[in-house]
Amino acid sequence: MQTKSNGGSASEPATMILHNAVIVTMDSDSRVFQNGAVFIDQDRIKAIGQSSEILRQFSALAHHIVDLHGQILLPGFVNTHVHTSQQLGRGIADDVDLMTWLHHRIWPYESNMTEEDSYISTLLCGIELIRSGVTCFAEAGGQHVTGMARAVELLGLRACLTESIMDSGEGLPTSWGIRTTDECLQSQKKLYEKHNNTADGRIRIWLGIRQVMNSTDGLLLETRDAARELKTGIHMHVAEIPFENQLVAETRKVDHGTVTFLDKIDFLQENLLAAHTVWVNDTEIDLLSRAGVKGDANAGVTVSLGTDGAPSNNRMSIVDEMYLASLINKGREVYAKGTTDPTTLPAETVLKMATINGAKSVLWDNEIGSLEIGKKADMVVVNPFSWSMVPIHDCISNLVYCMRTENIVSVMCNGRWIMRDKKILNVDEEEVISLAKEASSDLLKRAGIKIPSRMNMI
Amino acid sequence: MQTKSNGGSASEPATMILHNAVIVTMDSDSRVFQNGAVFIDQDRIKAIGQSSEILRQFSALAHHIVDLHGQILLPGFVNTHVHTSQQLGRGIADDVDLMTWLHHRIWPYESNMTEEDSYISTLLCGIELIRSGVTCFAEAGGQHVTGMARAVELLGLRACLTESIMDSGEGLPTSWGIRTTDECLQSQKKLYEKHNNTADGRIRIWLGIRQVMNSTDGLLLETRDAARELKTGIHMHVAEIPFENQLVAETRKVDHGTVTFLDKIDFLQENLLAAHTVWVNDTEIDLLSRAGVKGDANAGVTVSLGTDGAPSNNRMSIVDEMYLASLINKGREVYAKGTTDPTTLPAETVLKMATINGAKSVLWDNEIGSLEIGKKADMVVVNPFSWSMVPIHDCISNLVYCMRTENIVSVMCNGRWIMRDKKILNVDEEEVISLAKEASSDLLKRAGIKIPSRMNMI
Repeated sequence: MQTKSNGGSASEPATMILHNAVIVTMDSDSRVFQNGAVFIDQDRIKAIGQSSEILRQFSALAHHIVDLHGQILLPGFVNTHVHTSQQLGRGIADDVDLMTWLHHRIWPYESNMTEEDSYISTLLCGIELIRSGVTCFAEAGGQHVTGMARAVELLGLRACLTESIMDSGEGLPTSWGIRTTDECLQSQKKLYEKHNNTADGRIRIWLGIRQVMNSTDGLLLETRDAARELKTGIHMHVAEIPFENQLVAETRKVDHGTVTFLDKIDFLQENLLAAHTVWVNDTEIDLLSRAGVKGDANAGVTVSLGTDGAPSNNRMSIVDEMYLASLINKGREVYAKGTTDPTTLPAETVLKMATINGAKSVLWDNEIGSLEIGKKADMVVVNPFSWSMVPIHDCISNLVYCMRTENIVSVMCNGRWIMRDKKILNVDEEEVISLAKEASSDLLKRAGIKIPSRMNMI
Repeated sequence: MQTKSNGGSASEPATMILHNAVIVTMDSDSRVFQNGAVFIDQDRIKAIGQSSEILRQFSALAHHIVDLHGQILLPGFVNTHVHTSQQLGRGIADDVDLMTWLHHRIWPYESNMTEEDSYISTLLCGIELIRSGVTCFAEAGGQHVTGMARAVELLGLRACLTESIMDSGEGLPTSWGIRTTDECLQSQKKLYEKHNNTADGRIRIWLGIRQVMNSTDGLLLETRDAARELKTGIHMHVAEIPFENQLVAETRKVDHGTVTFLDKIDFLQENLLAAHTVWVNDTEIDLLSRAGVKGDANAGVTVSLGTDGAPSNNRMSIVDEMYLASLINKGREVYAKGTTDPTTLPAETVLKMATINGAKSVLWDNEIGSLEIGKKADMVVVNPFSWSMVPIHDCISNLVYCMRTENIVSVMCNGRWIMRDKKILNVDEEEVISLAKEASSDLLKRAGIKIPSRMNMI
């Protein structure tokens, strides 16, 4: 343990005061302490308030006292939909149509992954998540959860991990094979037993449904019941493309799409994290809302933000997602209304989506998502004094519209620093990049994926 | 001057070889040298090719030989619409409707600026431009061009500077006063005489039209003729909002909007840089295209990219604009066609918009916009080996979709480094930030601009 002026190592949580910060609490009163402090005991926030008051009350008890020099302290961001095992596939499927994307790039990639690939991919993805201020994420459903769990434990992040689950579907690579409904459930129950509540409680195991087109009714119903029994959540891609709704309407005999069908089989519940969910009608939004379903997109329910996977979005940055979420929504009514609306989705709402609503989406808002007494010490230090954020006339707005990953200087999860002064603490970043380069190159060769050249390479 | 391993100071251009780079030339053959080199003599590219060949031929002549260690070398980006004098107003007008934005925030801000404010604002904006890889920009029309010119000369950037020009319009602050058409033209001619072709030829003076609603027909026609006489360009906001088109149709007696009207008065020419230009019909796109007009938005002509001003966009980053341009266009047909199109505006097209098309838009493509023999040495070094861009399976795609400002490590303009290893060379960045903080705070007070609080500040 070092001096009081330092602030703790990655390995040893302790009592700590962070003071002289603009603290954006994201609590239900939307309190912002302009010169605030928090007192942290092990993994939890024990006190929060004015710097002078916290220092007076807790200095004697604190192993570390850290002056944040007027920087901004926020709850750690929650990325509620990210494919960590796809990080090695960045750039393999850009600017191509959906069928090329799926059949010639993503399925060959995923079906050829090893557990080690998934581990390395999650390490690389985790570095990007931490650098964008994320302390908790929901895996969207991927390959080799055990590999992911090893990476998350090492990185120091908090996560809801989910296996990619399919028990039917045409066009899947033959090498992959189709698992039975029972195999799908057994596999996930084993993962739950092995990993749930591990890594000091930072890892939770959720159940997955890749999407309705790759699921029998039996799988959906058994997943629903197993989630209830295990008291965990279900992460599912829902109504992601118009074709999905059409197919569901035809084959599942409902009048609209996936959400209508899921309601019919009583699948919509508070523990469902419905990802994407962009192709829904008003009736379906109402169904989702009444059931308390969470969404990472645009369903008018508890809405949070996700980055999706590297071959879909390329930037795994919740910082950029905040910026995009507002911009896209300001422009999205342009065809319907003939004009844009700059007042839509203001900055304070976007910041909620990335923090407290994210925590609600992953069913963890009793412990994370805001800076409050009793909650876990998951937090981000933002330096707003550099060229990308000055001048600061509207701090909340600058956080959403101006902040880049380079403004995020330190990240704490569960009371431990996982990035400090822009240095990732628990893994050797250069080594991860080197491993990722090699693993991804091998994986593409094994999978027979070739990326056409866009220019005249000489 | 230092050793051959160094690479030149900001103050003294010389002969230099940059080698061992992936050179994305953006020339008409879309050549990419996978291990390429350039030989630079003073401000111009004298040779480009394979590293081994360039080293063999020119090592004896080069004062500096710089190994780029496999990093990417690109033409400097061109930002074709940026309000440098608005940088101090970042965050003053977010999430508000257009009339609040204009009457209660932007006009009071602009009308209270001093020349020193414009100088400081342009310095701050310039730092952000350089950090996003921009070597040349087109000022959209702002306050105190002499202040801008001082800043551009100091920063080492290349720019087409334009005064904000209005000779009519309701609702303008009374303190501002309305200038006569003649005053508008005289003012710009003086600026042209004083600043055009200064700073080693890096500064050009263009003529401005703020927008049609603040211009008499006389101003438009005299500006057109003056631009022809001075052989310079005209930068104008065109068809930016539906209301503009409505008003023009009513008051100027045309059947659609601004573009139709400008065609009618024979204003559409090759030297017109039409900014925004989003509200145009097919006939108008055809009119723009046939006239050879340039646009920084969506007009189906020579299209380039611009960031607009800080109170409109918040991020003055052409890096983020590339990412956005592609994403928005992939989604923009969603209402019309019922689906998105991921193949729209592929990465290589976006990269053109930010380089060679940008150069065409500012009428400077004979000297900049691509890396070719005889062109100016305006270039950017990108480090693609960090967490945000690896793995690299598709270099061009990663440049557009993954690259962030933090990947841009060095920037050269006119043969001189203006940023090296992330350090801005010609100004003291901390000092500029400090000046900007003070100047913007004073300016907001003078202008009586108050920003409502979004949260509960305590």
